[in-house]
Amino acid sequence: MKLKRTQNCGALRAADIDSEIVLSGWVENRRDHGGMLFIDLKDRYGITQIFFSPEEDRALYDAACEIKPQSVVSIRGIVRPRPAENLNPDRVTGEIEILAREIEILGPSETPPFEIIDDLDAAEDLRMKYRYLDLRRDALRNNIIFRHRAYQATRAYLSEEDFIEVETPVLIKSTPEGARDYVVPSRNFPGRFFALPQSPQIFKQLLMVAGFEKYFQIVRCFRDEDIRADRQPEFTQLDIEMSFVDVEDVIAANEDLMRHLFKTLSDVELPEKITRIPFDDAIDKYGLDAPDTRFDMTLVDITDIGAKTEFKVFTSVAESGGAIKAICVPGAAVLSRKQIDNVTKIAQDYGAKGLVWLKVEKIDDMLSLKSPTAKFFGADLQAELIARCAAAEGDLILAVADKYETACAAAGRVRLHMARMMEMIPDGFSVCWVTDFPMFEANEDGSFAARHHPFTSPTAETIDCLETDPAKVYSNAYDLVVNGVEVGGGSIRISRPDVQERVFRALGIGDSEAREKFGFLIDALRFGAPPHGGIAFGFDRFVALLLGVDRIRDVIAFPKTTTAQCLLTGAPSEIAAAQLAELRLATVKKDAEK
Amino acid sequence: MKLKRTQNCGALRAADIDSEIVLSGWVENRRDHGGMLFIDLKDRYGITQIFFSPEEDRALYDAACEIKPQSVVSIRGIVRPRPAENLNPDRVTGEIEILAREIEILGPSETPPFEIIDDLDAAEDLRMKYRYLDLRRDALRNNIIFRHRAYQATRAYLSEEDFIEVETPVLIKSTPEGARDYVVPSRNFPGRFFALPQSPQIFKQLLMVAGFEKYFQIVRCFRDEDIRADRQPEFTQLDIEMSFVDVEDVIAANEDLMRHLFKTLSDVELPEKITRIPFDDAIDKYGLDAPDTRFDMTLVDITDIGAKTEFKVFTSVAESGGAIKAICVPGAAVLSRKQIDNVTKIAQDYGAKGLVWLKVEKIDDMLSLKSPTAKFFGADLQAELIARCAAAEGDLILAVADKYETACAAAGRVRLHMARMMEMIPDGFSVCWVTDFPMFEANEDGSFAARHHPFTSPTAETIDCLETDPAKVYSNAYDLVVNGVEVGGGSIRISRPDVQERVFRALGIGDSEAREKFGFLIDALRFGAPPHGGIAFGFDRFVALLLGVDRIRDVIAFPKTTTAQCLLTGAPSEIAAAQLAELRLATVKKDAEK
Repeated sequence: MKLKRTQNCGALRAADIDSEIVLSGWVENRRDHGGMLFIDLKDRYGITQIFFSPEEDRALYDAACEIKPQSVVSIRGIVRPRPAENLNPDRVTGEIEILAREIEILGPSETPPFEIIDDLDAAEDLRMKYRYLDLRRDALRNNIIFRHRAYQATRAYLSEEDFIEVETPVLIKSTPEGARDYVVPSRNFPGRFFALPQSPQIFKQLLMVAGFEKYFQIVRCFRDEDIRADRQPEFTQLDIEMSFVDVEDVIAANEDLMRHLFKTLSDVELPEKITRIPFDDAIDKYGLDAPDTRFDMTLVDITDIGAKTEFKVFTSVAESGGAIKAICVPGAAVLSRKQIDNVTKIAQDYGAKGLVWLKVEKIDDMLSLKSPTAKFFGADLQAELIARCAAAEGDLILAVADKYETACAAAGRVRLHMARMMEMIPDGFSVCWVTDFPMFEANEDGSFAARHHPFTSPTAETIDCLETDPAKVYSNAYDLVVNGVEVGGGSIRISRPDVQERVFRALGIGDSEAREKFGFLIDALRFGAPPHGGIAFGFDRFVALLLGVDRIRDVIAFPKTTTAQCLLTGAPSEIAAAQLAELRLATVKKDAEK
Repeated sequence: MKLKRTQNCGALRAADIDSEIVLSGWVENRRDHGGMLFIDLKDRYGITQIFFSPEEDRALYDAACEIKPQSVVSIRGIVRPRPAENLNPDRVTGEIEILAREIEILGPSETPPFEIIDDLDAAEDLRMKYRYLDLRRDALRNNIIFRHRAYQATRAYLSEEDFIEVETPVLIKSTPEGARDYVVPSRNFPGRFFALPQSPQIFKQLLMVAGFEKYFQIVRCFRDEDIRADRQPEFTQLDIEMSFVDVEDVIAANEDLMRHLFKTLSDVELPEKITRIPFDDAIDKYGLDAPDTRFDMTLVDITDIGAKTEFKVFTSVAESGGAIKAICVPGAAVLSRKQIDNVTKIAQDYGAKGLVWLKVEKIDDMLSLKSPTAKFFGADLQAELIARCAAAEGDLILAVADKYETACAAAGRVRLHMARMMEMIPDGFSVCWVTDFPMFEANEDGSFAARHHPFTSPTAETIDCLETDPAKVYSNAYDLVVNGVEVGGGSIRISRPDVQERVFRALGIGDSEAREKFGFLIDALRFGAPPHGGIAFGFDRFVALLLGVDRIRDVIAFPKTTTAQCLLTGAPSEIAAAQLAELRLATVKKDAEK
């Protein structure tokens, strides 16, 4: 490198005219205007126009004509004003250009496999393979730079609030959700494995037992899940834990954090107090435990009305203790039969047998329902339904009749779908806490699984149902939901060993299994454990939300595909037989291949 | 938790007298003075003395007597002045104590397996198993809190300097030093593996190709090495990379970083310009590539003097082109034969066949040598040697004769040992850069290995020896050495694909192997790669050095043993057969066990 940059490509202004400078960067494009060559030279900081004149220096001009776009060059030249007709007010360096005197090619470029522009339609596989080129696009690079700011703002705030950043191990013991652990064979202890953490949960609890009181970490976590859109096998978590706190304390501290980050990073003012929605209400009104509160159109329970109709689907569900959940979509009576059929599919995807639709018409100044189903409703029931749903002329009422949980879930999904279709979702952010979660979910075989994780504390009011009726136990857990996406979740943890053992038993984890897997945690709770709790935020998702970006792989520098591959480097790959032998491992063929 | 803390245990002063407060913390100790009970209550912030009087409240006093040390309690009480004779000026809360009114036991403690005091001599295995108790010790906790400050200071400085923090993947492709990679089996692609990164080297280079220009990350790295004292299988690296830079730029930027961190974290002023020692000089004068420059006693070459003696060991080494390297240890002539024999062992451990010792005596105002070897030296040679070594009465000259490299290495180790033994090492920090490294190390079979890594650029002056005499190629590499410990190392990287291919060939990596392993990197260099370089610091070691702590496991919250085990959680451990089957892996018994 002979020519070393004196400025960056975003620095020069009219005040610099006549100075000799050196710029370095990427050749963004090259334009030949009747024998005069212009190059836009770009670096992280900006773009500066370079001018080559064949009259001034023929050899230099000829050399510049040969440079391919995306090549890296240094250019020595003189800053000069642009002619008045070429001023570019959209660019901070738009008043000037550089009259080139010398050029040094630092890194020539071949023709890239796709054009490096922001509205790019190259195949994603190709962009993943050449991720270093994709990252040259302003849109993607700015996401990563925004993410950098998010790290700094988060850590600065938490440090100021007296939280201590502690790194926890990546090579850990296999955890309760062990089946989804990535594992790492031990060379020193053949046949044994480390696991990669799905979260630093147990270590942060141990830090509370150790007396750190306030901990945080922005930390990589791992989950070997089956393919799901927009999940990554490695993801980043903002992990927080506090001692001597109850639910109110953790919520208050994290509301302050969120308020600070939304303001600092995106200039968004969150409300003074963030709405809280108990889990049961969230299900009842939104159908989902991560309600999108940017718009209303909440679920209306019409079970009692349905019971009075002559519509068999409704009456039988009402009789068997199920529920009929409706939404009223403003202005959607215009939808075609085909459009409505597509909505029905959504309901079916989420377990409903079908979807009833009723259009609200006005005939002779009277609102009435129009639908193949309407005939089962008397005029009074039609009026009652219209009133219950606060429906107006031109609205569309959609209803799901099923088991309570299914009716809610399907109606909740239909609600989201209709809001998107009808463009009812405003810009901006709507944030809420979902609280008062049930402690357990029933498995199909009647056993129970932890809804959050087995270290979540039951509420004092319901703890005694642990042995008698686990479905009635509620937990001190809370989720933070932004625009219908769960971005964080946490709880007050169990800090007493006897309670931890009772919860393990309720989960069907026997005493000896509990001791083998979590003996060290139960032991730790015997030596002076403070009350403690915390939260973990999905940092990728959080950054994506703040940026208004749909996919988390657009905020990750080197993401993997949904099949957990790195197309850039070709990982995973085969390893040497010798290495496998040293680990005392052998690969096993599929049964079918035996 | 009924009683919620109103203050922390380090907050109360005389001005708070008569207020009612609630404190929460760990019962540090309990003292019964003639029927009056004192408890020292401790949290992260301090210690406050609590007073229980049986006359004031017998039941409360009795309850307090039952509380075991290390239990977690909340105490409500009134702040009152201590009696004059009990003031404790060593403690910020030493003017006051709390008259207890109510106590709530939040987390009772059993008797801990070791006492939680700073000068602790419990077995390290026990302390690792109960790490959460060990972390309650002020010494260890303060290390972790210092480390927290080091993270924040580092990131704040680098952000201010326009560096962008980018997270790089943990599940990566197996690397050149593959044999020491931890591997992670892929479930989606049976038989294939990810590797855990030994460093984010390639990704940070790709970020430079992507145009980020200045990158940093504090990042976990992994190395499955054989047991070595004070190494950890997972360690933390401060990783930095810059574009459009040469060696001078990277050194200057990192000197500024170091100056800032030493000042901010430890109030140490590093010199304006940090000494640079070329690698060849470091070997010649200190015997080692990480010279301890806190003291002199550098190696003296006495090969020419040795050649003139009648001492066969010296003459034969001199004749065969070897070297004789001596140090002169001030005042060490007092050492016993046995002590000198121990030093000889050090030299032998580092490959020397033996160690020659010569005590400097003064007889009749003349300095002379005393040693079984001295008889081979004539008086003039004795004088010449004494002058060469600038030796004085009572000094001890120690010399190693061997191949040049061996003589330097052994004499260098002897130098360190003697400096420690003679307590010659001053407090404080001595920092230097070691520069101008040879590009390669010769393997025993005559092939070459990269001294840093295969992406290090050769110097322009020596690059053309790549094909003719690789031993003569020097690299644009540099290490930062603090108190004789390498804390950082880096280089200007190769940014041209043809140079990268030439270096791979010099390393005996064939074109097809290079393509298979590093094709994506060579490709990246074809699409406009800027000149770039950087450095990586061992963050654990750096923090330990600043703290004056000998072992990196004392600055890591949850370290592993030298056999890469976590004694706290019992990792690595066996995993379920079903999980192994799902990964299509089987464990293989040792040959001997077949």
